[in-house]
Amino acid sequence: MYIPTFDDMMAAHERVKPYIHRTPVLTSSFLNELTGAQLFFKCENFQKAAAFKVRGASNAVFGLSDEEAKKGVCTHSSGNHALSLSYAAGRRGIPCNVVMPRTAPQAKKDAVKGYGGIITECEPSTSSREEVFAQVHAKTGGNFVHPYNDPRVIAGQGTCSRELIEQTDGLDMVVAPIGGGGMISGTCLTLSTLAPETQVIAAEPEQADDAYRSFKAGHIIADDAPVTVADGLKVPLKDLTWHFVSNHVTDILTASEDEIIAAMKLTWIRMKIVMEASSAVPLATILKNKDRFAGKRVGVIITGGNVDLDLLPWLN
Amino acid sequence: MYIPTFDDMMAAHERVKPYIHRTPVLTSSFLNELTGAQLFFKCENFQKAAAFKVRGASNAVFGLSDEEAKKGVCTHSSGNHALSLSYAAGRRGIPCNVVMPRTAPQAKKDAVKGYGGIITECEPSTSSREEVFAQVHAKTGGNFVHPYNDPRVIAGQGTCSRELIEQTDGLDMVVAPIGGGGMISGTCLTLSTLAPETQVIAAEPEQADDAYRSFKAGHIIADDAPVTVADGLKVPLKDLTWHFVSNHVTDILTASEDEIIAAMKLTWIRMKIVMEASSAVPLATILKNKDRFAGKRVGVIITGGNVDLDLLPWLN
Repeated sequence: MYIPTFDDMMAAHERVKPYIHRTPVLTSSFLNELTGAQLFFKCENFQKAAAFKVRGASNAVFGLSDEEAKKGVCTHSSGNHALSLSYAAGRRGIPCNVVMPRTAPQAKKDAVKGYGGIITECEPSTSSREEVFAQVHAKTGGNFVHPYNDPRVIAGQGTCSRELIEQTDGLDMVVAPIGGGGMISGTCLTLSTLAPETQVIAAEPEQADDAYRSFKAGHIIADDAPVTVADGLKVPLKDLTWHFVSNHVTDILTASEDEIIAAMKLTWIRMKIVMEASSAVPLATILKNKDRFAGKRVGVIITGGNVDLDLLPWLN
Repeated sequence: MYIPTFDDMMAAHERVKPYIHRTPVLTSSFLNELTGAQLFFKCENFQKAAAFKVRGASNAVFGLSDEEAKKGVCTHSSGNHALSLSYAAGRRGIPCNVVMPRTAPQAKKDAVKGYGGIITECEPSTSSREEVFAQVHAKTGGNFVHPYNDPRVIAGQGTCSRELIEQTDGLDMVVAPIGGGGMISGTCLTLSTLAPETQVIAAEPEQADDAYRSFKAGHIIADDAPVTVADGLKVPLKDLTWHFVSNHVTDILTASEDEIIAAMKLTWIRMKIVMEASSAVPLATILKNKDRFAGKRVGVIITGGNVDLDLLPWLN
């Protein structure tokens, strides 16, 4: 198992810069007052493909040799990695095959197709996903870019925290959602060198709290098909992301479905930005644990903005 | 009738700077490709009180002498001017009485109260609004800050275009929504001196097209209670805004309700920003008149972001 290094992250940043946005950091005096903290929202919902995952996907795609690139890339993903990889492959002009759960939001499926990705559907469980993917991979021979358990992807995701640290004047903590752990791992990778005093807090839905239970147990616990409104956070940790979570994460906090939806709606109302439910989990945990964050300078990573506007969770 | 001057706008900008944001200008490669134009979106949905109207309201409030300010301010408004004036009065620490139609979105009523404004409701017609307002004005004696037919307000709104010109590298046109004409008048005021070659295009709902009909007829035509999803654009022109519209506006374009809603949803999906239906009218008219805008550098003013997230128009 190759553990990506700080230098890998720096090389990734140079490699992906032409294909990604340096996204803005927004603040909200209302949310600062409400939480008692100073919050700095890193808005990856404004990223290309509306997701931070374009960082890691672009690093993998543009790191391939011309020979490797010929057969294209392939992956399985609950959504944003699929469309990010499709975007990056499209920019390089190589094929991209993706296995997606048939239950993934239509907006994400449409976006994948819009970028030229080829979708094969599976059932919404880890086991079905892996089975269908093995078939697609064997057939196409494309380079497998795992959505998070891949050193190229983690090094790419780490570029987000590098920008965040440059855009703020020092942070006490960074809070990011945790699903498979790619963003959290990249955050740990970057901050452990660039800002070793900055705590990394992972935020997870109660209904998909496998990372929380893994963290407490000291080994990976994986659930097969958790149900949560935060559809980007259903996948389990893997060995590479577990390395970063177990060694560098300060704590994992959880929030209920109602808390996540309320934090999502509050952000739309007060900050006037469209973001996914997964991106609301950090704010939900901050609102639930105000004492812990009060008086601190807190980076919050808004991971993506791919929402089905016809199926908003507060209207169900 | 005092016509505000370019110097009034410059003085307004100095006066209001501590109380407003210099809002960002966003671009979208997707929307550029779709329209064939280069669009520069001035995001007043990110403004204080989530509306450009805080510019004019702040100019009026902070331009009062201490003696005048004692009795506070009062106004009537379909929404954003009400909450902008409440915000500005709150910052100065003086009372603000507002007359609002009982049908105004709950989100706007809540925001007015949140800033400390005192609401008196009227029926959703110009005649009822003026009658109820006369009572409130007589009772409180506050300084009347008209939502648009006021030189202080127009000079304040003009600061938006000054920033837009500074933030872009020259524009062929600026497109802004037209209701009572405050934003369009401020845009004309500023651009006629700062960028006289830049055309000013007003965008209006077909179902509230009194400004369009006035423009064609050569005199003000007012409707009493038009019905449109663009709730900020129901009010008629008045003498001061008619001065600017008749002398400086290049053209007025209209869009149907369906076109406005489609443009609104498209902006949310592709730009990941929350904006009002009124703010979507410019893009709706650009999409409808592509030939006119293709190849041009076009400023688009996104006037506000106060939306009731429980009543999104594409879900009705």
